[in-house]
Amino acid sequence: MSPMVVVGTGLIGASIGCAMTRAGAQVHLRDKVRSHAMVAAARGAGVVAAPKAEEVRLVVVAVPPDAIADVVAQALKRYPNAIVTDVGSVKGTIADQVQGLVADATRYVGSHPMAGSAYAGPLTAVPELFVDRTWVITPRADNPEWVIDGVRELARRCRARIIEWSVDDHDRAVAEVSHLPQLMASLTAARLSEVPRGDLALAGPGVRDVTRIAASNPILWRQIIASNRDQVLAQLTRVRHDLDALIDGLDEPDTVESLIERGRLGVRALPFKHGRSAEELASVIVQIPDAPGSLASLFADIQGLGVNIEDLSIEHDPEREVGFLSIQVDPGKADELRAAMADRGWGLRA
Amino acid sequence: MSPMVVVGTGLIGASIGCAMTRAGAQVHLRDKVRSHAMVAAARGAGVVAAPKAEEVRLVVVAVPPDAIADVVAQALKRYPNAIVTDVGSVKGTIADQVQGLVADATRYVGSHPMAGSAYAGPLTAVPELFVDRTWVITPRADNPEWVIDGVRELARRCRARIIEWSVDDHDRAVAEVSHLPQLMASLTAARLSEVPRGDLALAGPGVRDVTRIAASNPILWRQIIASNRDQVLAQLTRVRHDLDALIDGLDEPDTVESLIERGRLGVRALPFKHGRSAEELASVIVQIPDAPGSLASLFADIQGLGVNIEDLSIEHDPEREVGFLSIQVDPGKADELRAAMADRGWGLRA
Repeated sequence: MSPMVVVGTGLIGASIGCAMTRAGAQVHLRDKVRSHAMVAAARGAGVVAAPKAEEVRLVVVAVPPDAIADVVAQALKRYPNAIVTDVGSVKGTIADQVQGLVADATRYVGSHPMAGSAYAGPLTAVPELFVDRTWVITPRADNPEWVIDGVRELARRCRARIIEWSVDDHDRAVAEVSHLPQLMASLTAARLSEVPRGDLALAGPGVRDVTRIAASNPILWRQIIASNRDQVLAQLTRVRHDLDALIDGLDEPDTVESLIERGRLGVRALPFKHGRSAEELASVIVQIPDAPGSLASLFADIQGLGVNIEDLSIEHDPEREVGFLSIQVDPGKADELRAAMADRGWGLRA
Repeated sequence: MSPMVVVGTGLIGASIGCAMTRAGAQVHLRDKVRSHAMVAAARGAGVVAAPKAEEVRLVVVAVPPDAIADVVAQALKRYPNAIVTDVGSVKGTIADQVQGLVADATRYVGSHPMAGSAYAGPLTAVPELFVDRTWVITPRADNPEWVIDGVRELARRCRARIIEWSVDDHDRAVAEVSHLPQLMASLTAARLSEVPRGDLALAGPGVRDVTRIAASNPILWRQIIASNRDQVLAQLTRVRHDLDALIDGLDEPDTVESLIERGRLGVRALPFKHGRSAEELASVIVQIPDAPGSLASLFADIQGLGVNIEDLSIEHDPEREVGFLSIQVDPGKADELRAAMADRGWGLRA
């Protein structure tokens, strides 16, 4: 994949340059704003000089959403032997536009590395940005295998986890897990901009978490939302339905509780770092002996076993006035933990 | 403030017990669920044995919202010489209920330590939970000064930052910065519970941030929202207005951009750790020299000065094809940084 060209040296483009330079590729950086390309080069993303066009094997287009299709079409013409990909966060509209702009778009395949930050620009570029992050590739039926392979190689060298999906599946999923959360964060944060300023002294980590991504770039997000308009509208309409039901049912205790319960299910369904969700953990439940000192030794025993504990909670048996410690672990480790705890004399609940 | 009683040994109650025990107080723990009090005791929160009622100087009520008023009223009767406070997150309804339950409630003053976690229960109790966190005290006109002083002392020993507000100001502010964000997180997470499961593979840190607090306890939150119903309804109604406008204007580019822009203002208005918001930072703007190596030495010079940098961004002057590095710092440090950078030969923009 060398020499290669990165067009657009914001956080994503510059970080790809850093990762590929580190992996041994010759990376050429291009940006409409020359100082951005220079900053990216200073961060180790590559060189600002132009390559010989016919030698270029890969072009990564990392420009703002509205410009992607044009830049991809230009790249297909300018670099006649290169595989061309982009890193935009919506794939359907780009694929359609590119196919409208060039007669043969078979050397173009879309991709989407799921990494980023509210703070854009090459200043924070790092080669590790994509390590263990998901990188979606959206091949079309007319892409030759060597073209798709080139993009797979790019993602692999950036040490990302590769998923291959259709354009439609991708665009629906990002509306659900990225575009809707972005708009919800902005709706929440927009309220904060209009409250008495002193009230914000009570802001804790919760509201900071909810609104963190609302610091994102308005122009970038206008373009993202516009290019995924139908999927975003479907999500927003469902949220409005839930919000209407919440407002109408605010005086019925069940309404709030069931919304929070549904939200809890949603959070638990999100995969952990290794792709497993909280729903898929196993519980090992140990009876808490009715004597103060013994709980400390229970903790000590659990820690001593060196099993990776994902969560802990206390359960209570109201019939028998007995407490239980519920230890959530990887299902593959549960039997081992149960046996070891029984060995040490702790009472287990089946 | 010793001996004292903590009623309710969840995360907050047990953590107060830990902090006050460490500060030298004799803390007596009570919980309807005996195993919770025992776990709290094992975490260092105090002892489970009962004190002599007339010797108790302070009672902290840390039970679920719906039970607070009754437990406060009982404590005022049971401990005739004690100051009684609670740690509930809504203050108006509790104050009204307590005054309806006892003839003389002058020994009761409400308070609200702004700390917590989606993971409740004494297992994660730590004495540092309140360090540098805000602790709101809501005195009433009929509280004698010695009663308010007792609660101030409690918050101070837990090393929190004390704010004294009216009950109404408090309840409006928590609706804005806590209850609305909680419901927005739950509305977002509730959508996730209903999408094709495989789509969640694309979830990144953004949606995790937005939905983190949606893992909270549904019964606790049903009670909190019910006790602050009017303020929460006012917030939800405003969000519905914004959401309607977003849906109706989704095809007009300005609608999305201006919502994201308003959200950005809201995030920037949130205070940092030391109570200052991003709006109040000063920018020092340095010209980026048009030569690759010099940017690295610019970074090295900035780091060498040891000034605490709150944010960095690149600005661009389209007229002159020149880039600038904007360095955001504490306003008190800006002049020093400007002088030092000029000394080292860097070009500054006024």
